[in-house]
Amino acid sequence: MSTESLAVALVGASGYTGAEALRLIRQHPDLHISMLCAGRQAGKPLAEVLPHMRGVDSPDLVAFDADAVAEAARFAILAVPHGTAQEAAKALLDRGVKVIDLSADHRFSDPALFAEVYAPHAHPESLARTVYGVPELNRAAIRGADLVGVAGCYPTSVILGARPAVQAGLLDDGAQIIADCKSGVTGAGRNPTATTHFPETSEGIKAYKTLTHRHAPEMAMALGVKVRFVPHLVPMSRGILSTIYLPLKAGVEAEAVRATYAAAYADEPFVTVLPEGTHPETRHVRGTNRCHIGVFPQGDLLVVQSVIDNLVKGAAGQGVQCLNLMAGLDEQAGLSHTALFP
Amino acid sequence: MSTESLAVALVGASGYTGAEALRLIRQHPDLHISMLCAGRQAGKPLAEVLPHMRGVDSPDLVAFDADAVAEAARFAILAVPHGTAQEAAKALLDRGVKVIDLSADHRFSDPALFAEVYAPHAHPESLARTVYGVPELNRAAIRGADLVGVAGCYPTSVILGARPAVQAGLLDDGAQIIADCKSGVTGAGRNPTATTHFPETSEGIKAYKTLTHRHAPEMAMALGVKVRFVPHLVPMSRGILSTIYLPLKAGVEAEAVRATYAAAYADEPFVTVLPEGTHPETRHVRGTNRCHIGVFPQGDLLVVQSVIDNLVKGAAGQGVQCLNLMAGLDEQAGLSHTALFP
Amino acid sequence: MSTESLAVALVGASGYTGAEALRLIRQHPDLHISMLCAGRQAGKPLAEVLPHMRGVDSPDLVAFDADAVAEAARFAILAVPHGTAQEAAKALLDRGVKVIDLSADHRFSDPALFAEVYAPHAHPESLARTVYGVPELNRAAIRGADLVGVAGCYPTSVILGARPAVQAGLLDDGAQIIADCKSGVTGAGRNPTATTHFPETSEGIKAYKTLTHRHAPEMAMALGVKVRFVPHLVPMSRGILSTIYLPLKAGVEAEAVRATYAAAYADEPFVTVLPEGTHPETRHVRGTNRCHIGVFPQGDLLVVQSVIDNLVKGAAGQGVQCLNLMAGLDEQAGLSHTALFP
Amino acid sequence: MSTESLAVALVGASGYTGAEALRLIRQHPDLHISMLCAGRQAGKPLAEVLPHMRGVDSPDLVAFDADAVAEAARFAILAVPHGTAQEAAKALLDRGVKVIDLSADHRFSDPALFAEVYAPHAHPESLARTVYGVPELNRAAIRGADLVGVAGCYPTSVILGARPAVQAGLLDDGAQIIADCKSGVTGAGRNPTATTHFPETSEGIKAYKTLTHRHAPEMAMALGVKVRFVPHLVPMSRGILSTIYLPLKAGVEAEAVRATYAAAYADEPFVTVLPEGTHPETRHVRGTNRCHIGVFPQGDLLVVQSVIDNLVKGAAGQGVQCLNLMAGLDEQAGLSHTALFP
Repeated sequence: MSTESLAVALVGASGYTGAEALRLIRQHPDLHISMLCAGRQAGKPLAEVLPHMRGVDSPDLVAFDADAVAEAARFAILAVPHGTAQEAAKALLDRGVKVIDLSADHRFSDPALFAEVYAPHAHPESLARTVYGVPELNRAAIRGADLVGVAGCYPTSVILGARPAVQAGLLDDGAQIIADCKSGVTGAGRNPTATTHFPETSEGIKAYKTLTHRHAPEMAMALGVKVRFVPHLVPMSRGILSTIYLPLKAGVEAEAVRATYAAAYADEPFVTVLPEGTHPETRHVRGTNRCHIGVFPQGDLLVVQSVIDNLVKGAAGQGVQCLNLMAGLDEQAGLSHTALFP
Repeated sequence: MSTESLAVALVGASGYTGAEALRLIRQHPDLHISMLCAGRQAGKPLAEVLPHMRGVDSPDLVAFDADAVAEAARFAILAVPHGTAQEAAKALLDRGVKVIDLSADHRFSDPALFAEVYAPHAHPESLARTVYGVPELNRAAIRGADLVGVAGCYPTSVILGARPAVQAGLLDDGAQIIADCKSGVTGAGRNPTATTHFPETSEGIKAYKTLTHRHAPEMAMALGVKVRFVPHLVPMSRGILSTIYLPLKAGVEAEAVRATYAAAYADEPFVTVLPEGTHPETRHVRGTNRCHIGVFPQGDLLVVQSVIDNLVKGAAGQGVQCLNLMAGLDEQAGLSHTALFP
Repeated sequence: MSTESLAVALVGASGYTGAEALRLIRQHPDLHISMLCAGRQAGKPLAEVLPHMRGVDSPDLVAFDADAVAEAARFAILAVPHGTAQEAAKALLDRGVKVIDLSADHRFSDPALFAEVYAPHAHPESLARTVYGVPELNRAAIRGADLVGVAGCYPTSVILGARPAVQAGLLDDGAQIIADCKSGVTGAGRNPTATTHFPETSEGIKAYKTLTHRHAPEMAMALGVKVRFVPHLVPMSRGILSTIYLPLKAGVEAEAVRATYAAAYADEPFVTVLPEGTHPETRHVRGTNRCHIGVFPQGDLLVVQSVIDNLVKGAAGQGVQCLNLMAGLDEQAGLSHTALFP
Repeated sequence: MSTESLAVALVGASGYTGAEALRLIRQHPDLHISMLCAGRQAGKPLAEVLPHMRGVDSPDLVAFDADAVAEAARFAILAVPHGTAQEAAKALLDRGVKVIDLSADHRFSDPALFAEVYAPHAHPESLARTVYGVPELNRAAIRGADLVGVAGCYPTSVILGARPAVQAGLLDDGAQIIADCKSGVTGAGRNPTATTHFPETSEGIKAYKTLTHRHAPEMAMALGVKVRFVPHLVPMSRGILSTIYLPLKAGVEAEAVRATYAAAYADEPFVTVLPEGTHPETRHVRGTNRCHIGVFPQGDLLVVQSVIDNLVKGAAGQGVQCLNLMAGLDEQAGLSHTALFP
């Protein structure tokens, strides 16, 4: 690592988003992990928990201690279960550590909304200072933040896909959006369940939590429109494809829609609008922080398809992108690699 | 086979729908295959073309000859590529053979519509006598038909899912329906292509032919409403899940929607409406002629999810169901087995 | 069902082998399930435990009671976890019910060997009367048995593949066999574990229990030679491919090997020796009770490849085959369907 | 790129190994692609051929011209079909370009052997100067080479797994080795075929070219022992697991075997011998240049399991490792990233 490499503490290393943050920071030119915290797994060799790390140098897994983290790092990435991040973030902020939270605990600024969607927050005052972590949405605010609640995987995909049309006023007044999203199984985490048991996940597809998933209010908050959201579980490990149905205002031409999308992302390093007629595929962004968007206007309906890797742009990669901004680094640092294809 | 077993000719045995028809008729108590026709593969041992038939008694593959078929069978199932069935059906009908066509060639009665969606039909007079092959839609007409154009896989799934709401007048006036459908790869047939090459099909998902797929007019024809249709390719071999978005008329209560669906399929042997809150999975109908439907009304939106096996209820199984009706057999004969799970 | 249909009790219906026995008996012309027993799931509607049974008539799940079973059926199939079958079999035998045990509890006749491989048997006297359930090996004994311990999935596949060469004395004196077996994930049962969690099972392969798996002594017992056995977990749900390496005695010609295999299975309804140079595939026997065998002699080495469906010929199907023999039915009854391909 | 970054020409960018070389060099700190050559695809935008490169800066695809390559780069990586590399390598060597050939064209030094396994070589004099590209085998020779024939994917995996035992004289005199190898589908290349069509590749496993595959002589050449090789096709995209069976000399203790393996790879940066009892998994090395090895001695038999990513350590990554050595760079440069897990 270079002498100016910035120390980062990673809290929660045994789940998929933590493992992904570890992968990304290891190949980051300006960051290094100075402390690796785990819960029940603390004390174990990392390779027992993450066998793909066998033979690779890495810090040991230690129990979380806010004082020790504050001594070891100016930035901490939280990759812990929802609920658990509330205390950890508070303790770290109190000690001057800037926090990037990959969990759902700091995505809403409004404590009442948070309580409605999840449960009352242990530290509502944290919500007053949190910034929603989608750089394409609010880059400037992230730069100045000391607490970022990185967006959920589904919301990231839907927000990037729907926002240009919403922002440009292309939709019908009072329109609501339908987001039919298809996710890989890592989105369900690393704990084995009946739903993720191979024989009941492979060779089949199903929806779940139809119209009741907690990512819908997050999408609505970020987009300012109502979103009817149906998530589906696909027999693949990584990736989200969101097929978004947006009712166009009368008179909006297909060409205008395409121009709006092209302009919206012309300068975005991680978002690419595909040529007319081209369909995005999740496998083309696997392992990357990139988002590919296909735009299909037809008469009064706009269909947008948006693909990301749920563990990267939908979690750890977006976290590193936010951290880059907060630390004054090049936003693309450590995130410029291409997809593992196929 | 029983002495009263009915002879059936199967035309086209080397593709997936043909192989599936062969499987179903072999286990049918009242039918047997008296002639097995193939194109380029004629003359080969069946096991070379369908290796899973190795060690199993079966007729040889012979070249198609309408006179020979007419001598061998009163019924013929056509499992040939789109376009090819037009001549075959005509020749067989002329010889008094009743035809169940699994291709797209006889799904429309209107030659103009057929020409618009596909190309001018070689025998428009066939279209005047064809019956659309979805027994749940028009059982009586199928019973009396001598030519049935079995519905496409996507349309079958969408029609079964959407029809009760449409028929009962639950939808907004002038409402259009969104059908976001997810299909297994056998829907693309047996010819290898870049799109179906394993490394570019596994571990990923994509849409294709967004809003331009030729099954949309078929759905509209059968349902009487406009359908905006986006098909997706899922890394699985069999199954279609259609997630259908239907705008409800103001004042329609969730309970009324559920009651409508329960009533619509109360007596249907192959369609099951799942209990409230239950999501259908394609793997639960794999290998069967069954359709599972989940009904999720919420405010002004009804989400219906419908799953079938695209090769069975979406093709060969529905063909046998139609044949059962045309032959005066028990409609469920040969189709009562349960899913291969998992 | 026909009036002469034979009543069968199925004990253990919530796991994969139980579900498969249920599927096979439902389509059996001469058998029906008169009682369906479960453990913790007793009392629940079957469709809650096996959602693919939704919409299909079936008996309720009741708690196991030996007296009730004895009243309901002359035959019982046990599809319960290893260890659990010992008491159940004893109780049923005492009441005159003939038992087909799909678990590992009655595969050895020698209590000492059983104790060494598993643990001391609760009813060693049961072992004295048990018959090892591979009809191709000991059909006559099965016909006369009232207790059959159906062979394990791996052993079935290896025994069918290796036995002709062993029996015909084609192997080197004192030769040992290497069995490199590849299994689908249903072999691990229905309980979700870290090993069967989709993201850690798909897109990868690994061996497990190298040279220490408990099926090795079972193979050795049935074959009379030492077997070095390495099982592998493949990202598929069903199927076992056993690649077996057998050292040939000097002077044994390739043609003699092929002739031996052809002769050994010429009259076996479920075993097919493939033409020279043809490789078997698990997907060609999926859902069937069939075994495909490829024979590749080269100099001093014979490689045999044997494929089965682990849940059918490797468990429930072989159980029904044994039951057919015990009941004096046609051995192929209910098992003549072809593979679900693809 | 740094000012001292070394220019590399990549010849053949539209297949999987070419795409992988492109990925690896893009993230290499000391290399950059100065010319990207393609065959039929020359002139097309790269993103049309490799859609995952959409939105990423990259050179255009140009037709191969040896003079132009010699002007653009001191090193060329050939990722072209077998046979095609013979002329290209000759032309480049004549112009002073050092060549790393990922095809099979320069793996043998002996023209007679090459002709026997493949066909007569167009430039046998190239074979006189080629070095076999497995750094763990002959690092010094690679450092001084101007032509390296990078080892095949199967041979790399088997050589790394078997060599310590062979080298240390642990095997029976005259012993032959059995290599039962399981590969992902990218090993078959990018051209769609019946064998790689998703429905006939997923949910199943089969062997192919039993005892006749052309990688067996390559293994024997590198190891100095006879190898009986059976490759299998597994429903996954990337990865090879080789299960290798080695007959141990009488008296060789398990502990000695383990010590031999530990010593052999103690200083190797890319090869890790796993702790006793631990099984390697292909998914733990996915996307990396690493090899994990599990060692299972038992009595007279040693079972070794070796996993690599076939496109990285089995092709493009090993090519870059060789190039690093030839160019005097750090051997690990550009190859230190960890696996994409899961």
